[in-house]
Amino acid sequence: MTAADANTPPSSRTRVRREAHRGLYDKATLHAIVDAAWLCHIAFADDHGVHCIPTACWREGEYLYIHGSNGSRMLKVAEAGAQVCVTITHLDGLVLARSAFNHSMNYRSAAIYGTFEVVSAEHKAAALDAFMERLAPGRGGEARPGNSKELAATTVLRISLAEAASKVRTGGPNDDEEDLDRAVWAGVLPMALRPLPPEQDRPATGVVAPDYVSEWAHQARRCHVDEVAG
Amino acid sequence: MTAADANTPPSSRTRVRREAHRGLYDKATLHAIVDAAWLCHIAFADDHGVHCIPTACWREGEYLYIHGSNGSRMLKVAEAGAQVCVTITHLDGLVLARSAFNHSMNYRSAAIYGTFEVVSAEHKAAALDAFMERLAPGRGGEARPGNSKELAATTVLRISLAEAASKVRTGGPNDDEEDLDRAVWAGVLPMALRPLPPEQDRPATGVVAPDYVSEWAHQARRCHVDEVAG
Repeated sequence: MTAADANTPPSSRTRVRREAHRGLYDKATLHAIVDAAWLCHIAFADDHGVHCIPTACWREGEYLYIHGSNGSRMLKVAEAGAQVCVTITHLDGLVLARSAFNHSMNYRSAAIYGTFEVVSAEHKAAALDAFMERLAPGRGGEARPGNSKELAATTVLRISLAEAASKVRTGGPNDDEEDLDRAVWAGVLPMALRPLPPEQDRPATGVVAPDYVSEWAHQARRCHVDEVAG
Repeated sequence: MTAADANTPPSSRTRVRREAHRGLYDKATLHAIVDAAWLCHIAFADDHGVHCIPTACWREGEYLYIHGSNGSRMLKVAEAGAQVCVTITHLDGLVLARSAFNHSMNYRSAAIYGTFEVVSAEHKAAALDAFMERLAPGRGGEARPGNSKELAATTVLRISLAEAASKVRTGGPNDDEEDLDRAVWAGVLPMALRPLPPEQDRPATGVVAPDYVSEWAHQARRCHVDEVAG
């Protein structure tokens, strides 16, 4: 049994039960879902009950990474070895069927089970550099790097992607045969997380926008052409 | 102590600890975050540990509603009175500071604690109608309504918004004074979940696009003007 097999869940608790045909267990699907995400939601339990906390994440190899202040309750609980479930969801569209009952959503989601491990002091800076590269490729050489005090105040954790499941819905509505001729608009209202125009903070003399900002602006302009023209 | 006070958490576990100044506890903030969401993530625990499951949600008054198949594990656990944490997160932008350490994200999030209650059979259809109205205003009169069998197969649950906290970050980077003159681009790369062009499923004769589809298409065209023109 291996997570590389798209049809075989790596454990009992990662077996997709609802709409089981939407469950996928291969690395390529999982990596693509994680790599498209800026953040994840982490479920964990402590003395106050269960919590569900959003936080930034990134992937390196077969691990998902998170980071935060040493003082973070979630990080302290995770560091102590608590079982967690890390979930990423991309909403891709509203699926409008001909019957109310068959309405649905298109999405790509992944749930990762296990425990986090602490990234050691000697690997911490490199892990955070990888996060910066994910956020803004090349920026690591531009912003001031973390100093020893800042690095010491930051905890970096990672969780193996070995025990994970993806669940994906794509395509149009699945209507009942007898509803197909009903005179109602049916289809998908797709959506996506899209860039909006960059907002520069107090422009510094002689600083030109780096490639990742120009590219963001270019992508954003595609959404605002009529505003500029009109 | 009341949830209507923006500065007072309704309970100990809803008190925002990290970046406490970003915590808000008023109804207006909470309602706006919930109403902007198509889905939430729900943390709950069962014999297999903690889980974090995405699902569609909507608000009516002081309650957040979810629905699903009677067979859903999450719904069965929630129906049995399990403590849950329901979290909604909108990512609004990447905040690029002059130092690596001060990078951040802009977001609006809300966490709701408590237990779900079952919406009774007599109120179920109305609750699902409200969900449809949220998805596509007016569509309730167009799609075939749920029949008794479909309604019987569907569970609708709701959770009070009384024990909740919102957390919001807006604005540009918060750099250290000594970094402000560093020659590096600083600011925000904003983003938003945006409509893409509707995809109709097997157009039916004589069916014109309803207003919510036309409006979706209009919003989406704003993102694709250069493709159409070019």
